Amino acid sequence: MSLIQPFPEVDHQHAVFADGLMLDCGVQLAPLTVAYRTYGRLNAARSNAVLICHALTGDQYVAETQPLTGKGGWWANLVGPGLAVDTDRFFVICANVLGGCMGSTGPAEKRADGTPWGTDFPTITIRDMVRAQKLLVDSFGIGRLLAVIGGSMGGMQVLEWAATFPQSVFAAAPIACASHHSAQNIAFHEVGRAAIHSDPDYYAGRYWEQGRIPAQGLGVARMVAHITYLSEEALTRKFGRKLRGANAVTFLEDVFEVQSYLRYQGSSFVRRFDANSYLTITRAMDYFDLSAEHGSLAQAFAKTPTRFFVASFSSDWLFPTSESRALVRAMNAAAARVSFVEIKSDKGHDAFLLDEPEFHAALGGFVAGAAKALGV
Amino acid sequence: MSLIQPFPEVDHQHAVFADGLMLDCGVQLAPLTVAYRTYGRLNAARSNAVLICHALTGDQYVAETQPLTGKGGWWANLVGPGLAVDTDRFFVICANVLGGCMGSTGPAEKRADGTPWGTDFPTITIRDMVRAQKLLVDSFGIGRLLAVIGGSMGGMQVLEWAATFPQSVFAAAPIACASHHSAQNIAFHEVGRAAIHSDPDYYAGRYWEQGRIPAQGLGVARMVAHITYLSEEALTRKFGRKLRGANAVTFLEDVFEVQSYLRYQGSSFVRRFDANSYLTITRAMDYFDLSAEHGSLAQAFAKTPTRFFVASFSSDWLFPTSESRALVRAMNAAAARVSFVEIKSDKGHDAFLLDEPEFHAALGGFVAGAAKALGV
Repeated sequence: MSLIQPFPEVDHQHAVFADGLMLDCGVQLAPLTVAYRTYGRLNAARSNAVLICHALTGDQYVAETQPLTGKGGWWANLVGPGLAVDTDRFFVICANVLGGCMGSTGPAEKRADGTPWGTDFPTITIRDMVRAQKLLVDSFGIGRLLAVIGGSMGGMQVLEWAATFPQSVFAAAPIACASHHSAQNIAFHEVGRAAIHSDPDYYAGRYWEQGRIPAQGLGVARMVAHITYLSEEALTRKFGRKLRGANAVTFLEDVFEVQSYLRYQGSSFVRRFDANSYLTITRAMDYFDLSAEHGSLAQAFAKTPTRFFVASFSSDWLFPTSESRALVRAMNAAAARVSFVEIKSDKGHDAFLLDEPEFHAALGGFVAGAAKALGV
Repeated sequence: MSLIQPFPEVDHQHAVFADGLMLDCGVQLAPLTVAYRTYGRLNAARSNAVLICHALTGDQYVAETQPLTGKGGWWANLVGPGLAVDTDRFFVICANVLGGCMGSTGPAEKRADGTPWGTDFPTITIRDMVRAQKLLVDSFGIGRLLAVIGGSMGGMQVLEWAATFPQSVFAAAPIACASHHSAQNIAFHEVGRAAIHSDPDYYAGRYWEQGRIPAQGLGVARMVAHITYLSEEALTRKFGRKLRGANAVTFLEDVFEVQSYLRYQGSSFVRRFDANSYLTITRAMDYFDLSAEHGSLAQAFAKTPTRFFVASFSSDWLFPTSESRALVRAMNAAAARVSFVEIKSDKGHDAFLLDEPEFHAALGGFVAGAAKALGV
């Protein structure tokens, strides 16, 4: 029950859409703020725009230092000058998702009356996130994106972009994701939400009124989620049964390195993420089910003009290769143009963020091929 | 932060050992109480005794109604008259583990001064649990057990019995277990412990003084553990994305059946299990590493006279088949007599407790073979 100050307010670059957005739940959310970053230059034909969609706890700082953490961009190994998504050639856009906590409208942002949305923030879906991004893309005068790329929840957004705005997406790369959240995925999210809800510093979602944050609960939520991002092999390789500063089990607490690593993951996370935002976004992921939205998965991509690049990682057990194969089968059934690669990696779901040269080369080739086809 | 009364005191059948036990951590624990149940009759030669070792949250009520929950015995489908472990033929013993909360000495039990051990309870190991069981077995005048059988943490105890008291174990059946707890196993336990520690009703482990129990934290710990007991397939088959009393996502909380199922698992668990006991036993599991204890895994079984039956379940990702195969390789290297079976099942780790006819037949055959070899 430590008192931790809410993280500092940063003036994130943003656009405001006065008319806002009609959400799937029926609420008109207006005005709508979308915080974003761009890299590279939009060409005269406005044909070189690449949209990057971030994952659950990601943000718009895809290729530069994150202002709160001081850490490098989360996909700085993939997006930049001369990289797979080459910012010397392409105009890259990355927006903080609707419901997020890095400047876009979400539970941590203030309403017109100056109070945060908190638990009054409406329920949102992945499609709502995509509609918010569409407003931003439209505001740049971009009629069609050269490519939409994202991993994990970012991949869900990519799929939703292609299904909802097929004429606006020339090429789509859903990475390490699935057409729906599985029962096991939902179950792990539910543990995290239960941990947040059971933290007395949650104060029924109005923790800011107390000058507190539910740090313990949010930390536990991050700990369990973090395990699902790593493979069993990766945990064994990194930590195994290594002991902390001891040669033998000393019968004290926290004897294993993996324990302190996990606790660090939990405690550092709470300094950069809002608990209500976490609840809102995990629910949006749980609701995601492209088949249910469209009657069938193939129907979601029927007559799509979009070309797809689907990638999975062999040791990813959160979004296993079988889920990507199901996507590819549906795209094939819809006669879509699709290429698929399973990257051999022992790093688990996290691999999509890490140095995986084969993945970077394959994705880079896909984007370059799309650019060539469009004459960009 | 609901106030929940500690679970009622039950007078469990037990034996008291005045001299107690020297623990691995160097503490002499005396007197020592071992709560236990027996089924069937010990023959005149005392050669028909089968010891069953229970898992993390199991107890001694292996083949009869559990007095607190009113539910049937946890292995009532395997242990009983005419069953794989036939109580018409064998004298079956099952003891609550040291550190448990069903009557054996543990954090929830009172010391001589009338106060519970609580967090003063010493750190224990799987070997300590086995030493406590050995005292009980000796008290029956049983020099050698016909068989020692257990799954999950029960399987760890079986391995420890064979390694520590090889002359006392004719046949050993470690089921759905491993020679050590992996980094991922430790990580999941650590999430559960963090959830308990962060519950304000934990009161630094002295919750009984407040008339409270850390129900929220223990519930979250159970929720995350429960996910690891089930396979992804089992969760999908049982729940998939089924909704609670609704035909479509209604944008309310708890829309999915898997959510309410998990919450029920958490809330029912706290009525039958002590939080300090959970912390103590999960740590014992984390410490377990037979190779480290003996220099190598093969060394743990060097010149063993024990015959082994190792079984795993194909969809068990907590103790995957690869871990059982590693056990079998070490037993082979030690020239031990060992048979191994991987049971095809989509039920995950939990399969060892469920109706798995192939498993029951194989284990029953192993026990019958051992009995025949001994002329029982």
